[in-house]
Amino acid sequence: MANKYIFSNILGDFVFDEKFKLVGKTKKKNLEVIDENSKHLSKVLEFFKDHKYFSEFYSKNLLLTKKALKESVNEDLLIIQCINNIEEIDRAVNLLVKRLREWYELYNPEFSRSVSTNESFVKLILDKNKEQLLKQLNLKKEESMGADLNEADIKPIRDLAGKILVLYDLRNSQEEYLKKIMKKYCPNLNEVAGHLIGAKLLGHAGSLIHLVKFPASTIQLLGAEKALFRHMKTKAKSPKHGLIIQHPLVSQASNKGKAARQLADKISIAVKIDYFKGKFIGDKLRKEVEDKLR
Amino acid sequence: MANKYIFSNILGDFVFDEKFKLVGKTKKKNLEVIDENSKHLSKVLEFFKDHKYFSEFYSKNLLLTKKALKESVNEDLLIIQCINNIEEIDRAVNLLVKRLREWYELYNPEFSRSVSTNESFVKLILDKNKEQLLKQLNLKKEESMGADLNEADIKPIRDLAGKILVLYDLRNSQEEYLKKIMKKYCPNLNEVAGHLIGAKLLGHAGSLIHLVKFPASTIQLLGAEKALFRHMKTKAKSPKHGLIIQHPLVSQASNKGKAARQLADKISIAVKIDYFKGKFIGDKLRKEVEDKLR
Repeated sequence: MANKYIFSNILGDFVFDEKFKLVGKTKKKNLEVIDENSKHLSKVLEFFKDHKYFSEFYSKNLLLTKKALKESVNEDLLIIQCINNIEEIDRAVNLLVKRLREWYELYNPEFSRSVSTNESFVKLILDKNKEQLLKQLNLKKEESMGADLNEADIKPIRDLAGKILVLYDLRNSQEEYLKKIMKKYCPNLNEVAGHLIGAKLLGHAGSLIHLVKFPASTIQLLGAEKALFRHMKTKAKSPKHGLIIQHPLVSQASNKGKAARQLADKISIAVKIDYFKGKFIGDKLRKEVEDKLR
Repeated sequence: MANKYIFSNILGDFVFDEKFKLVGKTKKKNLEVIDENSKHLSKVLEFFKDHKYFSEFYSKNLLLTKKALKESVNEDLLIIQCINNIEEIDRAVNLLVKRLREWYELYNPEFSRSVSTNESFVKLILDKNKEQLLKQLNLKKEESMGADLNEADIKPIRDLAGKILVLYDLRNSQEEYLKKIMKKYCPNLNEVAGHLIGAKLLGHAGSLIHLVKFPASTIQLLGAEKALFRHMKTKAKSPKHGLIIQHPLVSQASNKGKAARQLADKISIAVKIDYFKGKFIGDKLRKEVEDKLR
């Protein structure tokens, strides 16, 4: 029987005879890969230099790329989008509340100054009118420095407050979603770092696999890049913690550097377990940090 | 009858005899102002140096200041707050739409790229599902590069889109309010410059009276301060228009500098009429600019 070579590329599988003429095309995969006879490969490849294949190469290649792109969307990306979005909403809400306060203070400055939490400020001015709010401060309406605006001028202010409340709701529902997806995708990271900090770390690293490859000391400093490079350039003090400073175990510790290091250690272990789909030991890891820091 | 002096200050009206002893206190206003006998004034003032009056001075002064503050809130401030707020909402919406697009493009990149207007993009992805949207582009769902997300992962994206739409609504209702208040407070400015540009000019000047005092050439360049100072410092080209470039008569003119100058002239006239509560000639002024630019 004459020698036959089977060659596979993105167009399909091709069968050549010993003179490297095409003798057939098959849909079956790699019956005998031509690489075994790699000295003949260049001759086969010459066959595909024919221009008539180029448009087919192009469209098949496009399809494969599209498919790869499609499959590249994973939980990493969803988590990163979600945490970025939460941060964006926070920024937008803060801008708008600042604006709301400035506007509202024309009308009722005393009350605005008395409430420092933005969310409760927005809720309260929606729930109660000026008189009720001033009563809480033991002030009469006449004593207020604020102007007596008529209903038409107050309406847009209250409108704004209402819409800001909607954004607060959105932020909360997005956080709920983030919690759920973090718990499912990286339960150990979620337990040790918390869903917000865990997601921010993922976002900084770019993906879970990147985070797995980082040493614990890098995780400790993620988010403090600016301070780190300043330290390396100018002999300024080295940073001791990046965004894990937001973790209650670190922010409440007396020795924040030590707490950050120990938390980063455990996070580093947690992400490795998550990536290789190990079992859930997040609660144990978390307890170990807590015990050490007590 | 012995000479009596009446002296008024924020504590009330005081009656003194010719030896400058207090003989009475009255609630009536300025029967005879002591200034007519101003040579005696210093003696009367000595009377008020008594420390027992100081706390009363303090509290009365506070009341007066509060009253002045209260009365200082006028339409100027409301307009400025409103236009600042509209600009802030625009900024927030743009940030959030950018975020929404990035997130949505994981799921359906082809459609996001095909719609450039943000508002219609948000509306469309809320109204229709992926299949319907791709159909508009003559694509099948399988051909899309986007991942097949499940319902739980799409929900937060649609949530975000819904809340962005709420912000668009808010922006529109705030613009309605601005239109109304501009029409009432400065009808001529509103007619010549339009409500948005008129309000921005007011915001830049700080109040209507400031805008009245500006020469037309200043109005022409309001909002181009940076370019103006660069011109004065470094002999860079002088700016020809500030924020009135956004006016259709200027932005569509072939000679934008000339159009800006003529529009600024008429705006300058319009604000003066508005400030002194003259009659409405905004339509005439606007027509004059239009005719000149034709």
